[in-house]
Amino acid sequence: MSFGDVATKADGGGLPPNDGGLGPLSDRLSLGVAARLSRYLQVLTQARKMGKETISSQELSEYTHVNSTQIRRDLSGFGKFGKRGVGYNVDSLVSQIRKILRTSGQHNIALFGAGHLGRAIAGSDIFADHGFRVVAVFDQDPAKIGDQVGPAKVLHVDDLKLVVDEEDIVVGVLAVPTAAAQELADKLVDAGVKIIFNYSEALLQVPPEVTVHTSSPAVDLLYALYFYLT
Amino acid sequence: MSFGDVATKADGGGLPPNDGGLGPLSDRLSLGVAARLSRYLQVLTQARKMGKETISSQELSEYTHVNSTQIRRDLSGFGKFGKRGVGYNVDSLVSQIRKILRTSGQHNIALFGAGHLGRAIAGSDIFADHGFRVVAVFDQDPAKIGDQVGPAKVLHVDDLKLVVDEEDIVVGVLAVPTAAAQELADKLVDAGVKIIFNYSEALLQVPPEVTVHTSSPAVDLLYALYFYLT
Repeated sequence: MSFGDVATKADGGGLPPNDGGLGPLSDRLSLGVAARLSRYLQVLTQARKMGKETISSQELSEYTHVNSTQIRRDLSGFGKFGKRGVGYNVDSLVSQIRKILRTSGQHNIALFGAGHLGRAIAGSDIFADHGFRVVAVFDQDPAKIGDQVGPAKVLHVDDLKLVVDEEDIVVGVLAVPTAAAQELADKLVDAGVKIIFNYSEALLQVPPEVTVHTSSPAVDLLYALYFYLT
Repeated sequence: MSFGDVATKADGGGLPPNDGGLGPLSDRLSLGVAARLSRYLQVLTQARKMGKETISSQELSEYTHVNSTQIRRDLSGFGKFGKRGVGYNVDSLVSQIRKILRTSGQHNIALFGAGHLGRAIAGSDIFADHGFRVVAVFDQDPAKIGDQVGPAKVLHVDDLKLVVDEEDIVVGVLAVPTAAAQELADKLVDAGVKIIFNYSEALLQVPPEVTVHTSSPAVDLLYALYFYLT
């Protein structure tokens, strides 16, 4: 997961602090709490996928590397108490956290790039399991227009603005070469998309109201490697 | 980036704290410092890729969301001082941070899965730019054995242990369906691989000395969405 490098309206710089409980639910969650809840949600979704009906705070701790006292405190903060020897109900916790994160329901994605990466994204459940639906795929290559990619047909980029409006698209995913990314980010911004998920290595320039999240598996690996080597 | 969910030998639970300077260089870096350095490294590598020779602490701050005072403090801690009006030399900072993270040099990867995702990974510079080299690709499908995928030919999984020894492979990347992931993780562990990068949704069980990092783009998106929606 990548919490620290997500630009947010409230971003005060620095990594999210490990800052205690949930606080009043009417308030906006702090970065740290939202990060932990997102992390629980990831593991819970994986657990559900694997047919697990219940999960203990110990197990959640093992997979999230948040300590189990913190987990119990976070979850009891919104009225969830694990049963001794049984743990938490996975389905119910997933719904509750999605409600708190206000990300229940369906969110539509426009995907750029019908290459290997784009096809892998469109064809996987990774986004779908969290309520994200790839509703449109775009590619600069005219030969690919009309191809079926996952659940969508490849469209021409000139149709972007229309599709964003019609399908209420909030997220644009860039699975394109680094050299093409900025131009497409500009088009996404022009079309009104507010969150860009960047799989390229481009340093994207966007207006302050737009959030860019850049995928960085190699840096995640370097970080893991440091603690392995030292 | 995904710092918090990387299991490390030193992991004390919770997200990395924003815990001040670098401390004595002979010591192991704290999770928080290592996370920030990794984040600087990501942006610096992107900047280098885009031909930027210098970068200011303001720019680094804009892209990493670490505040610029913290950045200057971190970098001055190992003797790097940006020039007023010019900033830091990108190349030199990249080398320095890689040295501090002790991740200079080449690290060899074994990749599982010669589907769209595996091909996207093997064919991209994302890992290569950080010194990770895909030296072997494995697939369970006998029809794919011998196929060229990026720089490597697809091998049979029975050759795994031999290749891990010969090529000194420390990282295994799982670009396979969720149902296949645990079995392959077991094989990687048996072969002596210490870091597993998991693109599937499986909750992998591994011994404590092995680090699993699970990619979670959808959860990163949910997190970004929360701050957009609220």
